[in-house]
Amino acid sequence: MFSPISKFGCNIMENLKENIEDSRLTQPIYSFEEGAVLFNEDEKDLRKTLLGGKGANLAEMTDMNISVPPGFIITTEVCDLYLRNGKFPEGFEDQVKTYMALLETQMNREFGNSKNPLLVSVRSGAKASMPGMMETILNLGLNDKTVEAIVKQTKNRWFAYDIYCRFIQMFIDVVMGIDRSNFETALEVLKAKRQVSRDADLNAKDLETLAKRYKQIIEKRAKQPFPEDSWQQLYSAIEAVFKSWNSPKAKAYREIKKIRGLKGTAVNIQAMVFGNMSELDSGTGVVFTRNPNTGESKPFGNFLLNAQGEDIVSGTRDAEPINKLEEAMKDIHGQLMTILAQLDEHFKDMQDVEFTIEKRKLFILQTRDGKRTAYAALKIATDLVKEKRLSKEEVLLKLDPTQLDHLLHKRIDPNAPKQIIAKGLGASPGGACGKAVFSSEKAEEWAKKGEKVLLFRPETVTDDIRGMEASQGILTSRGGLGAHAALVSRDRGKPCIVGCSALEFDWKNMKAFITEGDKVHEINEGDYLTIDGSTGEVMLGQVPMLDPELPEDFYTIMEWADEIRKLRVRVNTETPEGCKKALDLGAEGIGLARTEHMLLDPKKLSIFRRVILAQSKEEKSRALEDFLKIQREDIKEIISIMSGYPVLVRLLDPPLHEFLPKEEDKIQALASEMGMDVESLKKNIEGLREANPMLGHRGCRLGITHPEIYEAQVKAILEAAIEVSENGKDPRPEIEVPLVGDVNELLEMRCLIEKVIESYKDRIKFDYKIGTMIELPSACLTADELAPHADFFSFGTNDLTQTSLGVSRDDYKKFIDKYLEKEIFENDPFAVLDKKSVGKLMKIAVEDGRAVKPNLEVGICGEHGGDPESIELCHSLGLDYVSCSPFRVPGARLAAAQAVIREKGLSIQGKV
Amino acid sequence: MFSPISKFGCNIMENLKENIEDSRLTQPIYSFEEGAVLFNEDEKDLRKTLLGGKGANLAEMTDMNISVPPGFIITTEVCDLYLRNGKFPEGFEDQVKTYMALLETQMNREFGNSKNPLLVSVRSGAKASMPGMMETILNLGLNDKTVEAIVKQTKNRWFAYDIYCRFIQMFIDVVMGIDRSNFETALEVLKAKRQVSRDADLNAKDLETLAKRYKQIIEKRAKQPFPEDSWQQLYSAIEAVFKSWNSPKAKAYREIKKIRGLKGTAVNIQAMVFGNMSELDSGTGVVFTRNPNTGESKPFGNFLLNAQGEDIVSGTRDAEPINKLEEAMKDIHGQLMTILAQLDEHFKDMQDVEFTIEKRKLFILQTRDGKRTAYAALKIATDLVKEKRLSKEEVLLKLDPTQLDHLLHKRIDPNAPKQIIAKGLGASPGGACGKAVFSSEKAEEWAKKGEKVLLFRPETVTDDIRGMEASQGILTSRGGLGAHAALVSRDRGKPCIVGCSALEFDWKNMKAFITEGDKVHEINEGDYLTIDGSTGEVMLGQVPMLDPELPEDFYTIMEWADEIRKLRVRVNTETPEGCKKALDLGAEGIGLARTEHMLLDPKKLSIFRRVILAQSKEEKSRALEDFLKIQREDIKEIISIMSGYPVLVRLLDPPLHEFLPKEEDKIQALASEMGMDVESLKKNIEGLREANPMLGHRGCRLGITHPEIYEAQVKAILEAAIEVSENGKDPRPEIEVPLVGDVNELLEMRCLIEKVIESYKDRIKFDYKIGTMIELPSACLTADELAPHADFFSFGTNDLTQTSLGVSRDDYKKFIDKYLEKEIFENDPFAVLDKKSVGKLMKIAVEDGRAVKPNLEVGICGEHGGDPESIELCHSLGLDYVSCSPFRVPGARLAAAQAVIREKGLSIQGKV
Repeated sequence: MFSPISKFGCNIMENLKENIEDSRLTQPIYSFEEGAVLFNEDEKDLRKTLLGGKGANLAEMTDMNISVPPGFIITTEVCDLYLRNGKFPEGFEDQVKTYMALLETQMNREFGNSKNPLLVSVRSGAKASMPGMMETILNLGLNDKTVEAIVKQTKNRWFAYDIYCRFIQMFIDVVMGIDRSNFETALEVLKAKRQVSRDADLNAKDLETLAKRYKQIIEKRAKQPFPEDSWQQLYSAIEAVFKSWNSPKAKAYREIKKIRGLKGTAVNIQAMVFGNMSELDSGTGVVFTRNPNTGESKPFGNFLLNAQGEDIVSGTRDAEPINKLEEAMKDIHGQLMTILAQLDEHFKDMQDVEFTIEKRKLFILQTRDGKRTAYAALKIATDLVKEKRLSKEEVLLKLDPTQLDHLLHKRIDPNAPKQIIAKGLGASPGGACGKAVFSSEKAEEWAKKGEKVLLFRPETVTDDIRGMEASQGILTSRGGLGAHAALVSRDRGKPCIVGCSALEFDWKNMKAFITEGDKVHEINEGDYLTIDGSTGEVMLGQVPMLDPELPEDFYTIMEWADEIRKLRVRVNTETPEGCKKALDLGAEGIGLARTEHMLLDPKKLSIFRRVILAQSKEEKSRALEDFLKIQREDIKEIISIMSGYPVLVRLLDPPLHEFLPKEEDKIQALASEMGMDVESLKKNIEGLREANPMLGHRGCRLGITHPEIYEAQVKAILEAAIEVSENGKDPRPEIEVPLVGDVNELLEMRCLIEKVIESYKDRIKFDYKIGTMIELPSACLTADELAPHADFFSFGTNDLTQTSLGVSRDDYKKFIDKYLEKEIFENDPFAVLDKKSVGKLMKIAVEDGRAVKPNLEVGICGEHGGDPESIELCHSLGLDYVSCSPFRVPGARLAAAQAVIREKGLSIQGKV
Repeated sequence: MFSPISKFGCNIMENLKENIEDSRLTQPIYSFEEGAVLFNEDEKDLRKTLLGGKGANLAEMTDMNISVPPGFIITTEVCDLYLRNGKFPEGFEDQVKTYMALLETQMNREFGNSKNPLLVSVRSGAKASMPGMMETILNLGLNDKTVEAIVKQTKNRWFAYDIYCRFIQMFIDVVMGIDRSNFETALEVLKAKRQVSRDADLNAKDLETLAKRYKQIIEKRAKQPFPEDSWQQLYSAIEAVFKSWNSPKAKAYREIKKIRGLKGTAVNIQAMVFGNMSELDSGTGVVFTRNPNTGESKPFGNFLLNAQGEDIVSGTRDAEPINKLEEAMKDIHGQLMTILAQLDEHFKDMQDVEFTIEKRKLFILQTRDGKRTAYAALKIATDLVKEKRLSKEEVLLKLDPTQLDHLLHKRIDPNAPKQIIAKGLGASPGGACGKAVFSSEKAEEWAKKGEKVLLFRPETVTDDIRGMEASQGILTSRGGLGAHAALVSRDRGKPCIVGCSALEFDWKNMKAFITEGDKVHEINEGDYLTIDGSTGEVMLGQVPMLDPELPEDFYTIMEWADEIRKLRVRVNTETPEGCKKALDLGAEGIGLARTEHMLLDPKKLSIFRRVILAQSKEEKSRALEDFLKIQREDIKEIISIMSGYPVLVRLLDPPLHEFLPKEEDKIQALASEMGMDVESLKKNIEGLREANPMLGHRGCRLGITHPEIYEAQVKAILEAAIEVSENGKDPRPEIEVPLVGDVNELLEMRCLIEKVIESYKDRIKFDYKIGTMIELPSACLTADELAPHADFFSFGTNDLTQTSLGVSRDDYKKFIDKYLEKEIFENDPFAVLDKKSVGKLMKIAVEDGRAVKPNLEVGICGEHGGDPESIELCHSLGLDYVSCSPFRVPGARLAAAQAVIREKGLSIQGKV
């Protein structure tokens, strides 16, 4: 018999699901009207969860009496059930039919009817915006019979067969999974035959032939005919959209954008309206209610006459700027401007609006909070407060802290000599320099090897997302400011130039050519180039860059954040440049200066190697003296720059073998440098080798077995601070003991430090602190014992994560992708603090430490200190400060403010 | 100015000291009489803490009116203060003078008086017995004047100068730190001159000359004269005894015997009595009240006429068995027997008693609980209960669980062919086999390399303790059953032979020779020999051994322990032999069967390597089938043997690279075996390499990325259990998922397991469980999430210690010695569970897990499960069972009982 204990089946996930009480959670389909009336003002988040962002906004617009083609939404819950069970829930098709019947009534057309057919669009729409990542099918409902009905109704055979061809193309690509390229050849052949270059120049008869040809190819490739039945088309399309939730590109996008905890996409089914009815009175466009590049409070966008939406989004046709619409259709332009103002007002943020004009009637197809550059985000935020639309707290909450570092990107030095060889459209600002690569795969591959690359492409598509992410910047020969490359780059803060028509590719020989007047520059993969995403200039070689200047709005926002935040923000750095940069960006001290990083310079490293390898007492003490000197000079410089601010200096942390070479040739070189014989040096290195260096002989364990090293470092810190203080500045050194796990270690090290201090007593006229890194579970669990002997705690969350989860950061790449894919880990634990375990240990440490010493200063160093989600955790734990790399300081200040605002219970729709 | 936060100086330890309220803690000196009356019956432990074991018992004996030479005791507190401050406390010398005055009155002699001098012994005596580890000085008070007074008083110039020589020797060695060997030459020269072989054959004049010569050597070596002033002698001797607390050998002894938390040694100052006054009416001896080898209830020991105590202890003179004393001095023998009975009765345990007869007057110099073999310990324990001296609980508490495994030592197979080449005294039972080494240093060195060694020495001294510990067994050419080698070996359960006079050493050529009749066997270091510590036989080569037979008392004690204990005891094994052995020793199931250990056999390893390296799906699935088969057969065997008992099988835990070779030649061999080219195999191996394998791609992380491996293993377990059950036996498999740190991992793996179970559903007619190892801090901290999905938790305390403390067991040897020496760690955390951190995490896991699932079964595997102190912790945490290696099972049963007894508040003087 089965063990009674073993009562869990594989439906564990099912069992875990909370009981559903709210009937809205089980309603599978909502009409736009239902979507508007069934949710209250304070249930907008629930609505978005169920209906997706697009669906929710369509419902809201319907409610606002804005002209939206009618339709309905299939919820994300249905998607979730579909993806888990591989089939629609019981009775789902009937419910679709009910809502289609409603739509038929509203449109006075019948789905699949060969006289008066209803055509629909089937579009994805998750809670979080994932532009271009999932599938869309337009013109659904067409078949050999209904297309003829459209011909009759519109009296426009060209139009009817244009949308039929488009529909077949989309359907075979999205639903049948047959690569589009199979069909493009047919199109190209036909265009060549007709000696035309634009698709639009083919005549109606050509398009009819093309539709037939497409369907023949399908039968051959897919071994099944194209479905003529409209209902079959519809259900297949819904399934395809559901499945596209888990497509590799969609998953990659969610991973990069840290979109988590969503169940799937909603599906929007909407009556078709047509922007491609004629060149005269039809068209389509995408407009932002404000300028997404600058934030200027003026609509910005493009439109195309006689086009469907995809023509704009794909950037395959150069669109006109929106103000030109006034010339073409003044009345429609006026209506559009009114609606844009209405939407901007209603959604209290810049909207990204898609519209279609069908025979001089304006339809709004969707609206959403628009993606914007960091510059624009700040401008819009301050404007929204000036316009009294939102409070300071509300706009702070809308800003993305991780986007702020885009502002800090370097720009091309205007005074540097440069050879400009081409110019395109500056699509995303900032300078970028790197080795040219001609594919996303290569971009990823080379970036993994540590190369800086620039991605050169004719244009980018959604599959290029990882390659773009891996590149310093992007250059495309085609596309406009609304093209994929432009949108993505802007969002990710990557410098980007599009539409650089001087650029051509020779794929056979993997070369590119840039034509400059009568000169042709040959570009090979690996050649250095520089691009300026602000001016659109392409330059040969590596052009020097300058640090960016920050806009006034940045300082306004930072000021608001500083008024609110409670956490102080320090910086992790050990260089003078890092210190200066950090002070500029508002850092309030150094949270981590790693003494071992000061040894990266080969000369300094050589001195420290002499400490490690000294053969006699005399040699050792001479080496230690030199070591003291170089450490003192480095520390003096940063303490001096940071005058008035605390400077936390960590005593040596890594195991000694990390300072010695592993490669045969380097060992030989070192041996001759040190005057040692190779064999004994090898023996020395071998003796230091460790199976698990992360858990090895490092941190204070070195301090205990090699007290002379820590002694020299403490002397260096004190002598540095003394000199700085005697020069009239205000040093505030903090001496940190790493890897403490037992109070006896801290006692031993504190004793060593205090003894050194005693010997400098008369010259110490400044405050100092002695504290410990908290980076082991044992340190957290014995915080009450440690606190009496530590002036401060500083969480080393990298190591604390490694030990708490038992995961080596050097090795976890082997399984982390699988873990994130299967959602075993919600986040990469080295990017976002693990709350369940690491957070719990931190809580214990803070509470137990402060119970013994209420004024204990507690901070966090390690890069978690720059991650907004982790900062929120730190705030809630009552930490005094976070510390992160210089460029993340502004984001940390903002995130710290957001934590306070969120704690007050304020939440806001749509984080931008 | 100094930071106010930095208020801790280096006297932190001082500050930590508890406030002393009991004035007895500050009283620096106690006379024997005070030691008796100032403590109540229930304050015996406090008395021992302050006065040491020797002092406390001298006080008790004084109180019992047993003839003890009068004296007083300097407390361990004074030692502690002395060691920390480097000097005696304020006013200490005056207090010594006061007590010396008392002694002078009692003895009617005056210290340093040149007519009627008082002589004293100065002896160490810590709370825990550390025989021979610290210093003793006899005959103190002698100088060129007082020695002449002794001559006059005793009319025995020989005696007076004998004790003077002895005193000078001890003083220069112990107090002045000059090696004794400097003086032995002088003695040898003199003996050669006089043509005598025994020291005792020198005449009085010779001894007088010798004393002078000694003092000349001192002046030359120490550049200062031998102190003639008795008080200076006394204070220096006290200091020397204090300092000997921290001598390397004393520290090594405490480390090995896990003697911890003591502050120092007490010093016993006692009037001298002399066993070396004559051959007729004086003597000295050491007697046990029972037999320490067998436990037989009959005094056992040796004595020497005309000797001082050191002659017995050092084993330099062959002593007579104690019954011979009856012939020499019948009355004294009678008195001694009466006192022995009295002491055995009073201290409720076998006593180890030192006595001296001075001119037919018997003095007892010390008594203590005697060291004994495990056999004797059991016999004495059951006898004490039979004699109604102690309760079952009390004797159980007195036994040392770690000593029980001595009983399990192998013995020489009586039927095996063997070449016996010599015979000595069997001093500690059991057979041992290994490579001969001739020094303790070499024994340690070779043992570290994994060699089994036998230590061959003329005799052993206290400095040899580490070398003995590292050896399988010990053979000495000299010494009797009371010699150092015999005592230590017996205590440590090492087979030992002493007094093997056929053994001689040639130190120049580092050879040994054993004379057998007219044959001489040449022995070189590295030659295999076998010894039988029971019979005293020395054999050439490696002689086969048999498992031991257990004495009846063992079963009695185990029965008593089983009646009391609450923890069940399981075994860690995956071999049929291990299972059988463990069942014999009382194991109640398998707590850990490591599937990877089943792959140690080269053929099986090769199959698993095929799984790892398979190049195609077909190859992989064939390899997996073979893998399943070998695992099933191995598991079937152990499940069958363990019928009726739970068998916990752990799914694959180590990272895959551990199964592949690292050395060039082995890689080449493997490549040809696998039919792979060497380069691609190397690439494969390189790809699996990890920086920190302990925190790498292992445990359930493998299960998640390579589900096919776990699937095969689960099938193997189920098929094995099904076969066993269909053969009419009672399988109780438990499937364990290792390295779980997140509930999602457990869900994923449980799902995999349940799916396999589903496919065997119809044939599963037995109970099974699915559970998880708890070996990461994150697992402990999320136990409430894990518990609903685990039928059991099993603490993997090795890994939990590694991660909680951030200490790699493979690497910690580099600093652990320093840590133990400086008492930064109280224990080796891989031997004894760390309570502060690991224990706290375990507590959280048990409490949070049981809060959700009250009947959750919780156990511990990993070798902490066999450590008594750790077992006590497990009991207090409410665990269901502990699991350890087969030989530690009896000790675990006893320790589990002790935990219950101690919990009831019962404590007992002197753990044996």
